[in-house]
This record gives sequence, C-alpha cells and structure tokens, in this order.
Amino acid sequence: MYPEALKLLIEEFERLPGIGKKSAVRLAFHVMNMEKSKAERFSRTIIEARERVHLCSICQNLTEDDICPVCKSAKRDRRVICVVEGPKDIVAMEKTHEYNGLYHCLHGVISPMDNIGPEDIKLRELMARLTGECEELILATNLTVEGEATAMYIARLVKPMGIKATRIAHGIPVGGDIEFADEVTLARALEGRREL
Amino acid sequence: MYPEALKLLIEEFERLPGIGKKSAVRLAFHVMNMEKSKAERFSRTIIEARERVHLCSICQNLTEDDICPVCKSAKRDRRVICVVEGPKDIVAMEKTHEYNGLYHCLHGVISPMDNIGPEDIKLRELMARLTGECEELILATNLTVEGEATAMYIARLVKPMGIKATRIAHGIPVGGDIEFADEVTLARALEGRREL
Repeated sequence: MYPEALKLLIEEFERLPGIGKKSAVRLAFHVMNMEKSKAERFSRTIIEARERVHLCSICQNLTEDDICPVCKSAKRDRRVICVVEGPKDIVAMEKTHEYNGLYHCLHGVISPMDNIGPEDIKLRELMARLTGECEELILATNLTVEGEATAMYIARLVKPMGIKATRIAHGIPVGGDIEFADEVTLARALEGRREL
Repeated sequence: MYPEALKLLIEEFERLPGIGKKSAVRLAFHVMNMEKSKAERFSRTIIEARERVHLCSICQNLTEDDICPVCKSAKRDRRVICVVEGPKDIVAMEKTHEYNGLYHCLHGVISPMDNIGPEDIKLRELMARLTGECEELILATNLTVEGEATAMYIARLVKPMGIKATRIAHGIPVGGDIEFADEVTLARALEGRREL
C-alpha cells in the first residue's frame, strides 16, 4: 500500500532486532522526513562503521587502527589481562575507572549447545599473547552457564603456564549481563575476584 | 570508548524516535555485524526511499509516480474524497476494503498552538480539486481537538460550493489515532458518518 521504496525501508527496519511492524513504519517515516543531508549522513555512517571498524590485532577489541588505544597505551599494566565476551563488556569495565590492565575480547563463549567450540572464539589469539609479561588473567565472562564454563576452560589451559587465573566475582547477579551492570557493582566484582 | 565510526552510528540510531541509548548500541552492533551486502542494501534503501518517494500531484499521498495508483484507477468513485491527516491513515482506510472513493492527504492538521495554519497543510491542493465531479468530502481527520477543528474548518469552506461534508464517526475512541484503529472499527466508522 506504501510506495515500493518506502516499503523496502520499512522492511529494513523490521529486520533489526527488537523492532516490530509499527516501530518500523514510524522509523521509516522519520527517515523519509529527515533533511536530505541528515539522511545521507545516516546512510553513509552505516557503511563507514562497517568499513572503518575492525578488530585490534592484539586484544581483538573493535578499533579503527591496527592496534587499539588500550593495547598501545604505555600507562596500562601489561601483567594483567581481563578476558571478556564482547566489546560492550570492555566499555562497561572502562567506566569503572578501577581497572588499569589490558583486555582480551573473546567475541563469544564456548557453547556446545550452539555448536560453538573453543576454536570459534578468539581463544587462540589469547593464548598467543601469553608468552610475554602476563601474570594474571581476570576471567570476566558473564555469570551464565556458558560464561562460567568458558572461564573454567581458560583457567585450566593457563594454570600449567604459571599464569594466575582469577574470576570476576560478587555483586553481579547470576544470569545478569556484564554490559548492563552499574559501575559500583562492577568495581566490587573486580575487587572480590578469586583464584580458580 | 567505542571506535569513532561505531560511536557515530550509535548516535545516528539514538536520534531516531523512541530509540534509547541501549537500543541504539544494540542496533549499531547488529548493523556492524551484518553481511556487507545487507548493510549496503540498508544504507542504499535510506537514500532511495527519500529520492524516489514524493507526493502525488493530485491527492498528496506518497507515491513513486507523478500520480498515485488510487488517483489513476478507473475503478475508484470520483464523487467521494476522503480527507486524512497523513499517509498512514490512507493505508488504514484501504485495509477496511469498505471504501472505494478517492483520498486527500493534508499532511497535518490546523493547530494554532503549534503555529500551523490552514496554509501550512495541503488544503489549497484540496480546494483546487473540488471544481470537478466531487460530491462529498468524508472528513477523516483524527478525533482530537485539532482534527475536529480542521474538519469543521473544511466543512464550512466546502458547503457553500454545494459539496456535502461528512465526518467519520462511531467506534474510534476519542483521542485515539486512526492509523492504529482495527479494520472492523474503522469500517463501522465509515458506515456511520454524519453530515456536518
């Protein structure tokens, strides 16, 4: 009933997660009524985000450079690496201002139910980093079954190498998401970490 | 904390109506992780919807042609014009399958509080159409103060021209939006229209 080009735009919005039919119509009309320059900027930003952002060759976090600002920084404590599931978790950790070590982004967790094994996450890249000055891995995967299992798996891998493996602890409700935890809770969880 | 290009994409999503910070992050990550071809299609669709869709030169509804399919159709009853606030209302009306006349899309209502006068909506274009075979205007603006006032205003304009002005009626709750009314209610409202 809508013109074809508008219908296609509505369909694009409907494909996004958490956007239903009515929201999609509302968003498409909003974009249709945007100033031309703003719609063009929106359109361009989609392409540019995809083209310019890639993974840091060390920690696998998102970055526009070859090596991300955290890995590059001389102020960071290189003896500690905090291992997280995704880039959003790193943003949450940085917001605590309590952590000064490095990160490693797994981009997932081991989940046999979903056919995701150790080779499907950035675990090989983590192991390759552990030849250097690293003394401790803080395993900050989510407190879900898969997150716990992944932490245990990594702890068992690194302990024979003489690297301390600690698990982020306390304060975060079990089943909750690290990316949405508040700063204080997350800071407490960092403090209370225990060795596996 | 996120790479600049990703931050810009998050900001673009945040500017959309009804999208908060967390949803914007979720949507931006979704787009980042899309297949390249799909992200390009999404980006292109935004531009194309804006470029290809414009207003029908007769009824002011959205169309990709000079004249929209309804205005073009030989099967439509040219003696009746249903006047609505926006294109979404036309879609809702068409879904009833009870209406076979033409439409006129005002793209707004008269609202002195918002500084919107009769010259700010597509009223001149409506008046220009009334020289022909039109015998009745169905005023299907929303049942809000502004919608009612706009209907009254138009009714007073066209009555001296010998054109019947009717108001859509019954079934739609006062203060409700026509675009979200269900088909049956809207069909009842069409049936029960009364002359102003």
